[in-house]
Amino acid sequence: MPSVEARPTIAQLAADLAAGRKTSMELTEEALTRIAKHVGHGGVAFVAVDEPGAMAAARAADQARAAGYVGSLLAGLPVSVKDLFDVRGQVTRAGSRALDGSAPAACDAPAVARLRAAGAVIVGRTNMSEFAFSGLGLNPHYGTPCIPHDPERIAGGSTSGGAVSVAGGMAVSALGTDTGGSIRIPAAFCGLSGFKPTAGRVPLGGTVPLSATLDSAGSIAHSIACCAAMDAVLSGQTLDTRPAELAGLRLYVTRDFVSDGLDSTVALAFEAALERLVRSGARVVWFDFPELCRLPEINGRGGLTAAEAWAWHRGLLAERGADYDPRVAMRIRRGEQMSACEYLEVLAARRDMQACAAWRLREADAWLMPSVAICPPRLDALESDEAFFAVNAQALRNSSVINFLDGCAATLPLGNGVGLSVCGLHGQDARVLQVAGAIEGIGYQYGRN
Amino acid sequence: MPSVEARPTIAQLAADLAAGRKTSMELTEEALTRIAKHVGHGGVAFVAVDEPGAMAAARAADQARAAGYVGSLLAGLPVSVKDLFDVRGQVTRAGSRALDGSAPAACDAPAVARLRAAGAVIVGRTNMSEFAFSGLGLNPHYGTPCIPHDPERIAGGSTSGGAVSVAGGMAVSALGTDTGGSIRIPAAFCGLSGFKPTAGRVPLGGTVPLSATLDSAGSIAHSIACCAAMDAVLSGQTLDTRPAELAGLRLYVTRDFVSDGLDSTVALAFEAALERLVRSGARVVWFDFPELCRLPEINGRGGLTAAEAWAWHRGLLAERGADYDPRVAMRIRRGEQMSACEYLEVLAARRDMQACAAWRLREADAWLMPSVAICPPRLDALESDEAFFAVNAQALRNSSVINFLDGCAATLPLGNGVGLSVCGLHGQDARVLQVAGAIEGIGYQYGRN
Repeated sequence: MPSVEARPTIAQLAADLAAGRKTSMELTEEALTRIAKHVGHGGVAFVAVDEPGAMAAARAADQARAAGYVGSLLAGLPVSVKDLFDVRGQVTRAGSRALDGSAPAACDAPAVARLRAAGAVIVGRTNMSEFAFSGLGLNPHYGTPCIPHDPERIAGGSTSGGAVSVAGGMAVSALGTDTGGSIRIPAAFCGLSGFKPTAGRVPLGGTVPLSATLDSAGSIAHSIACCAAMDAVLSGQTLDTRPAELAGLRLYVTRDFVSDGLDSTVALAFEAALERLVRSGARVVWFDFPELCRLPEINGRGGLTAAEAWAWHRGLLAERGADYDPRVAMRIRRGEQMSACEYLEVLAARRDMQACAAWRLREADAWLMPSVAICPPRLDALESDEAFFAVNAQALRNSSVINFLDGCAATLPLGNGVGLSVCGLHGQDARVLQVAGAIEGIGYQYGRN
Repeated sequence: MPSVEARPTIAQLAADLAAGRKTSMELTEEALTRIAKHVGHGGVAFVAVDEPGAMAAARAADQARAAGYVGSLLAGLPVSVKDLFDVRGQVTRAGSRALDGSAPAACDAPAVARLRAAGAVIVGRTNMSEFAFSGLGLNPHYGTPCIPHDPERIAGGSTSGGAVSVAGGMAVSALGTDTGGSIRIPAAFCGLSGFKPTAGRVPLGGTVPLSATLDSAGSIAHSIACCAAMDAVLSGQTLDTRPAELAGLRLYVTRDFVSDGLDSTVALAFEAALERLVRSGARVVWFDFPELCRLPEINGRGGLTAAEAWAWHRGLLAERGADYDPRVAMRIRRGEQMSACEYLEVLAARRDMQACAAWRLREADAWLMPSVAICPPRLDALESDEAFFAVNAQALRNSSVINFLDGCAATLPLGNGVGLSVCGLHGQDARVLQVAGAIEGIGYQYGRN
């Protein structure tokens, strides 16, 4: 299997700009050229490209830099934005046709405004699973983004176009959201890094919500340091995200739930990564977390997502239901059947599970797991509803554990579309980025070492 | 109508103890003697009295004081505890028979533990509306507490016994809870002060919940300063609660919703209080808040309380439903019918209403309203379910606005069972106590001035 093309990181590009080796207009033109080429070859990573806006922002970034003002590491760098964020003057469609005819957004979503204030150049809106409600990225309206270097396989979702935009060099980073894995799955499938921060750290105003409880906004990029740079801008928080010293780190791993029925490629890549970590001086600590096996039962009625999505969508479904992807509409409609009591029971089970995780992981520096239990599936294998729903559930299983626990996680590429997730509990964002950075530092990928 | 007997405040009693004019054992004996007399006359303020425990605590408080240790203003003072708090070694029944046979509590609820650590003497468990689910205090299992100085009228609820314990000199303050008015209604009816802090400021572990979202723990006592002293212990927070300067305070009052159909005694007392405040230099600012009129519709299916109570009670109702007060069981069962979507819509409406209140009250020092729209009703007027449910809804209407807004409020007695509520939004607890203290300082009561 071909591997993802190595591309410069945010720090490298920022250094190029600082040294005058490149301008933002050159970088933006290169990105727009790649987008045009991608579109010319039938690529569907973007649902809208704002060439004049991007070039104007790039020019402004170059002028600001010439005048001595550099807003952040992202200043002058092309970034893509998932279609569910409001961008001033653009219609927010969230990958759907049901929002056609909505008024253009009157102002930027706060996350977008922060990117803009940091000097980032917004090149366009990226394709996604309709309303972010699947982990695979299939989209019957705008087409399904596939992996640039392996185009018969899907890019994963819901931030499908975002991952492809980064893998294809059309943006240095993608602004995405993650409710059950929507940043980490496409990052893993496309051989990239991704970071899903603790919910609430990045404002979600001006976005189309999937689950207000579980949603979080983060990024996909070429390295953990890139994700940390994006996080600093998106969260407005200055965390110490320098890579930790790997030797002595207590990296917790469980066989419960998240290791069930792993694809053999995933299992081998994960075991090999653990071996490399041990050889590098980290301590891999196996721990039990059997309570995780209750998750399918706890979320058996659709969980918080179905209930909260139904509450948001029911008016729109009544009016424009025929415009929805039927697979998405069907999943949202599960929320209609949920009682308040069932909803509250999920919340109570969540609190219990959080307490349990806090106890079981009390001595861990981080918790490692395969980001996704399966390798990127072929698009042609997902034609039947039965196959789609089964594979979607498999794809989301591991990553959604972290949203349920209200935690945070970074994913690192292990090659062949396999991701290694470095997970933490609520608010352990800095630690997760430090540990992920340490792991990244040893060069953990197949094929590159 | 006879008025509440004037009794010493916490500060006065603390001064008596400090000066050696009284001992804690004497004060506790006096309280226990009054309890015995109350019980001898058929009083039902307490469901359990812990005479040996109280005397042991009083002795310990006296010894600690003699040794130079005084934990707080409450040290050595008799306090009552609502029957829904865990007290080590006692069965928590929450005014019900359905919890008969439960194991005694293994440890104190945190609020009780804080009172104990502060040196308070816990004299017993006070009667309440079963499971705190009514604002009137009727209890078919343990009898209905009535106003000590007007015994044909109910004391109000749900902290019915707590208010009577204070009004009758059986405790200097009562630890209670308030989900829609359960501290403020009985405080007002019994001619006392009460304080419902912002939810979450006082821990609610070790209590039987009614609505985890709306519940808060606070106190009933003889003055605002007494309530502030209790709050300092219960919350563990040192707020500046010294009375504000009344002159120039902007006291907001609305005719919308909370003034609809006031009992004429309530209306007159409230208007007279406002006049006195204006004469004292405060500014009474009339403002519009028509959105409040949506509350009955928003909570038309039982609101957050019914949904959350049903989630907690459904197992117990299935097992012990015959032991419930049918009026309580009926109200809890409304939550069974609520869908997750309806529940989420109440939460969304709440957020909207909070934003609206923040805007409308942005320049207010406090918001004043009659604590209860009606005067204390006669017990014999509440025999039919129809009368009970109608009067209960009237009693709870004003106070529950503050719980819905996630605010805080103190009530001051205006005489004749009428209360003046000084209300604030989320976290404005210090300001509410400062303003209430200022109003208390001018001697606002009928009959006392």
